[in-house]
Amino acid sequence: MAVVKKDEKAKVANPQDASIDAATQIMIKRAQDLGIDTCFDRNVTLKPCSIGNQGTCCKNCSMGPCRLPLPKDYDEANDTRKGICGATANTIAARNFIRMVAGGAAAHSDHGRSVAEVFLSAARKETDAYQIKDVRKLLEIAPFLGVATTVEKDGAVLDRDIDEIAVEVGEKAMEEWGKAEGELEYLKRAPKPRYELWKKQGVLPRNIDREIVEIMHRTHMGVDQDYKNLMKQGVRASIADGWGGSMLATDLQDILFGTPYPLASEANLGVLKEDHVNIVIHGHEPVLSEMIVTTAQKPEMVAYAKSKGAKGIQLSGICCTANEILQRHGVPLCGTFLQQELAIITGAVDAMVVDIQCIFQNVANVAKCFHTKLITTHPIAKMEQDNAIHIEFDEHHAVEDAEKIVRMAIDNFANRGAEVMIPRQKSPIIAGFGVESVEYHLGGTFRGSYYTLNDNIINGRIRGVAGVVGCNNARVKHNEGHITVVKELIKNDVLVLTTGCNAIACAMEGLLTPESAKVFCGPGLAEVCETVGIPPVLHLGSCVDNSRILLAATEVVKAGGLGNDISDLPVAGSAPEWMSEKAISIGQYVVASGIYTVFGAVFPTAGAPVFQRYLFEEMEKMYGGMWDFEADPVKHAWKMINHIDAKRKALGIDQARERVMMDFADRQALDV
Amino acid sequence: MAVVKKDEKAKVANPQDASIDAATQIMIKRAQDLGIDTCFDRNVTLKPCSIGNQGTCCKNCSMGPCRLPLPKDYDEANDTRKGICGATANTIAARNFIRMVAGGAAAHSDHGRSVAEVFLSAARKETDAYQIKDVRKLLEIAPFLGVATTVEKDGAVLDRDIDEIAVEVGEKAMEEWGKAEGELEYLKRAPKPRYELWKKQGVLPRNIDREIVEIMHRTHMGVDQDYKNLMKQGVRASIADGWGGSMLATDLQDILFGTPYPLASEANLGVLKEDHVNIVIHGHEPVLSEMIVTTAQKPEMVAYAKSKGAKGIQLSGICCTANEILQRHGVPLCGTFLQQELAIITGAVDAMVVDIQCIFQNVANVAKCFHTKLITTHPIAKMEQDNAIHIEFDEHHAVEDAEKIVRMAIDNFANRGAEVMIPRQKSPIIAGFGVESVEYHLGGTFRGSYYTLNDNIINGRIRGVAGVVGCNNARVKHNEGHITVVKELIKNDVLVLTTGCNAIACAMEGLLTPESAKVFCGPGLAEVCETVGIPPVLHLGSCVDNSRILLAATEVVKAGGLGNDISDLPVAGSAPEWMSEKAISIGQYVVASGIYTVFGAVFPTAGAPVFQRYLFEEMEKMYGGMWDFEADPVKHAWKMINHIDAKRKALGIDQARERVMMDFADRQALDV
Repeated sequence: MAVVKKDEKAKVANPQDASIDAATQIMIKRAQDLGIDTCFDRNVTLKPCSIGNQGTCCKNCSMGPCRLPLPKDYDEANDTRKGICGATANTIAARNFIRMVAGGAAAHSDHGRSVAEVFLSAARKETDAYQIKDVRKLLEIAPFLGVATTVEKDGAVLDRDIDEIAVEVGEKAMEEWGKAEGELEYLKRAPKPRYELWKKQGVLPRNIDREIVEIMHRTHMGVDQDYKNLMKQGVRASIADGWGGSMLATDLQDILFGTPYPLASEANLGVLKEDHVNIVIHGHEPVLSEMIVTTAQKPEMVAYAKSKGAKGIQLSGICCTANEILQRHGVPLCGTFLQQELAIITGAVDAMVVDIQCIFQNVANVAKCFHTKLITTHPIAKMEQDNAIHIEFDEHHAVEDAEKIVRMAIDNFANRGAEVMIPRQKSPIIAGFGVESVEYHLGGTFRGSYYTLNDNIINGRIRGVAGVVGCNNARVKHNEGHITVVKELIKNDVLVLTTGCNAIACAMEGLLTPESAKVFCGPGLAEVCETVGIPPVLHLGSCVDNSRILLAATEVVKAGGLGNDISDLPVAGSAPEWMSEKAISIGQYVVASGIYTVFGAVFPTAGAPVFQRYLFEEMEKMYGGMWDFEADPVKHAWKMINHIDAKRKALGIDQARERVMMDFADRQALDV
Repeated sequence: MAVVKKDEKAKVANPQDASIDAATQIMIKRAQDLGIDTCFDRNVTLKPCSIGNQGTCCKNCSMGPCRLPLPKDYDEANDTRKGICGATANTIAARNFIRMVAGGAAAHSDHGRSVAEVFLSAARKETDAYQIKDVRKLLEIAPFLGVATTVEKDGAVLDRDIDEIAVEVGEKAMEEWGKAEGELEYLKRAPKPRYELWKKQGVLPRNIDREIVEIMHRTHMGVDQDYKNLMKQGVRASIADGWGGSMLATDLQDILFGTPYPLASEANLGVLKEDHVNIVIHGHEPVLSEMIVTTAQKPEMVAYAKSKGAKGIQLSGICCTANEILQRHGVPLCGTFLQQELAIITGAVDAMVVDIQCIFQNVANVAKCFHTKLITTHPIAKMEQDNAIHIEFDEHHAVEDAEKIVRMAIDNFANRGAEVMIPRQKSPIIAGFGVESVEYHLGGTFRGSYYTLNDNIINGRIRGVAGVVGCNNARVKHNEGHITVVKELIKNDVLVLTTGCNAIACAMEGLLTPESAKVFCGPGLAEVCETVGIPPVLHLGSCVDNSRILLAATEVVKAGGLGNDISDLPVAGSAPEWMSEKAISIGQYVVASGIYTVFGAVFPTAGAPVFQRYLFEEMEKMYGGMWDFEADPVKHAWKMINHIDAKRKALGIDQARERVMMDFADRQALDV
């Protein structure tokens, strides 16, 4: 059972240093007591390459890897570092950076494509497991794909058949990935000035796949060796992700599974139930997990669980699958990315079902130490270890697959061997916001428009809006960055929109409740939240759902009074504990959409200061948005707040906010 | 001018250790005398990362780079190495390996796509710079793309309009990159049993781009963690390269620019002429270089050159652009990949024109030390250095662009400052073979079929056929691997087909002449070469033209007598000095096509022996072809010869060969 060797016993993490979360600390300790290593311990024993993490290690040909660390006496004017081929630190860092965009955009977009394929199957009635659930959204997106929603007949304009629209939407959506000519249709969803700016900069994506492939070509040995030109393609591919693959994923998922509206649930390892069959769903695509949710609720399945001695079936989720089934069904969150091993270490997980992205290969090793069945389900994501059971999910036999999986978990309930230890920590949450519900809730007396949200930003009650998103990273204290940044923002009247593991971290910390507004928010934001009954941190879903943030920003622009483009808005983006290539793609499309974006943990261009300055300064001149980095979470938040204040000033609404912030004494002292 | 600092003077390459080629040695010395560093010197001062080059450094997320070097006391049964996420050495090496396939397939295929775009432009008559030159090949490939070449009218079958066919071929070709449904049409070019095997293994590419993108997704953090499943996608994408993007590139280039037929030329730095305007074309796409060839031959351009004091214009090429304009126009080869800096160091290059792939960023630094104009021409490949002049080439103003470039070179002739020093070495060559000319030349009395080639293989005069291809690599002695492997093969009666920098190396060494057969070949191969008047090493073009080798193998299968599939043939592949990701993609599609393939220099999976065994042994059970590695070039060649002999034995033709090899005394001693 023991994976950590005896002589390495000393080399384990201090739980208090590893996470701010009590449940996590408890489970790290338990793992150590059982001799099972987790990512927290591996962080102690395995150090990252100090050159690679500067972004200046090039392994794009076999003459390398060529490593160009930043010299201690670095002198920008006399930087003669170069690889065997002569590639400079800037070239190497830019290559690596946009290959990260390629990896991230590929992940999101491939996810989007598989949703589109299921959508098309459903529209063509090739499967009855899935149906068009949200017709309103179908009709909303059809025009963006050039699909007519009405038809003329005998001079009259008639509604077109929904099934017909659905099939055409599915087909047009699929073409977004690979059309031979033209450009991405979905770009029309962006504000017009933003689209025009992209056109001017030459970064309109032609389709989704081509831009990713062109990154791989440009970064091949001896192709593009101008960091600005490399970044141009990085921007283009990231737009194809954010306004293409990711946005299509979100929209088509909403149409198939329902657009989320706020609902109540709970978060953290404490959602596991000792006397229930626990099935933890981990990964990203809701296509399978939706089926498991439906199946686990079936009376015959519950009865089967009871027949095996359990009181019922407890589903919960990790990572973005968790966010997907939370936002549409209220399924509780079991934990963030870094807690995936810990869930199994409770001894209470009868099955962990994984699909794609952010799955630790080590969950198979941990599962071996318990009775837990580890079930891989996606054809493109298997595991080397022999205890990983592969049940390949297919939309054409979706119900059967889901039943097989749930039954396997139930059958495994009786096999629990190790003492079960579930930490008691869990927090109540309200989740499942979106473009539509923000409009509804913040519409105030003008419900049905973003006008009142804009009005509250203009009058300064809401100082600005921040998108705080992204992963955990074992290299930094679990959730500390997430929670510190978010608390600092809401304390300073910045409304936070959250997705991904930041959303789960906020959920665990109790920030996704309307009640938290009174405790943590500045007076302006607290007033708004209390008036309309929303949390100061709005859960908008999974990482592909960052597209909801883009669309919400677009709605704010449209509602008027805050400039003409996203780059005029008092908004900022943040990923305090980012880890994945997806985060870089997201960050890049957010920047390209005109939003100042700060990353925490590490930044992968430190070894190439000139290139980094291009990202951190010059990019703003081109896109009205730029990258920044700040590891200290309080300073991180203040970089965002200062940016928001600068945008307020540019809009001429800084005075409004100053008035709001004055107390009675201040008012009396005024010379008016 | 000096790039190497004084105190580093000692740290330069020994020219005799750096290359086997005298011209190269001379120019390395000259560079050192001038204080200009070249890749040969950088090989001395900059060592590759010893973990990264084992393939076990994972930088696919920002928790890393996680490095898992092979321990000295490596014990396969107890290999507990893992990254922060738990990724094993096998997972990491497989991820890295197929990302190389993605980079290589992207490079070839993107090249193919841009040819397809020019083709479509030409077919649609949007440009008059390009026309359909080879109608025969157009009609040959049309059916593979599902394009009819005849039309029924009033009961009669008529030839279809060529322009109409060309437009449809262009459109269908473009769809191969991104079609939303179905599979790659061009797979039909493979032997039927091979296609069926791919179908059984589940590796039929759906389109070209999607398979590359799916590699990027699968190798993203936390997706595919089973090296066998990762490789399945690597195979699929490589097939999309070899039988898709690369093959379309070759075919469409042949249709636009003419299918190559054998012609005479010369090779090595000695082709530069002191009294001529020297324009060196370097890169990969013939789209621009074809125009430059035409332009440089125009009487008014030659006259202009003379008006500036030159005796004429000398075009020559480096890398695969060189092979492209050699095989169609006889433009001489200036040198291989590793000689690109050296060409400029002659002081005689008035312009170096580069497009995409394998361009050293350092050529800009070297050009700064001379009068040489360095001209970048492709929108996706610029350079950071300010002396790189960007003249963006576009098929819609192709002639104007080419004229501008040639004029710039001529105008620069008068600016030569440094003493010109052109090494005298150059070799005569016969190049420009292909599927068609092999058929013609080796058809013997049965000209017009591969039957006689097959017959000579069966009777053992030709022991087998080897494709020896690939790059140079600054980490190994320039051209030594190439030449040693090829000489050992032809000495043992193995006919060599060559492309890329191996072709240039063979050209420089004089192996591309019919006369070399007598000197270097075994008796059987010498007899064949002398009879039909071909060199023992056939130049088949550039790296995308490796598709010609696949098609030649297919023709051999079709001609009969040597089994039913490529994997039955007595053939082997080799890349003795590979360097680029393209080489890995090529190697993989050659293996997937059923051919045993040996790489030299380094192999990027050394840190993961289990995964490496999968490539080196288990893959043969699936595809009838597998990878191998051998740094020693003689052993390398013998691995290939032994494989060829094993295949001969399996075919039952080993006895035939033994007879051929007997001399008269042997015959007398026979007990018959």
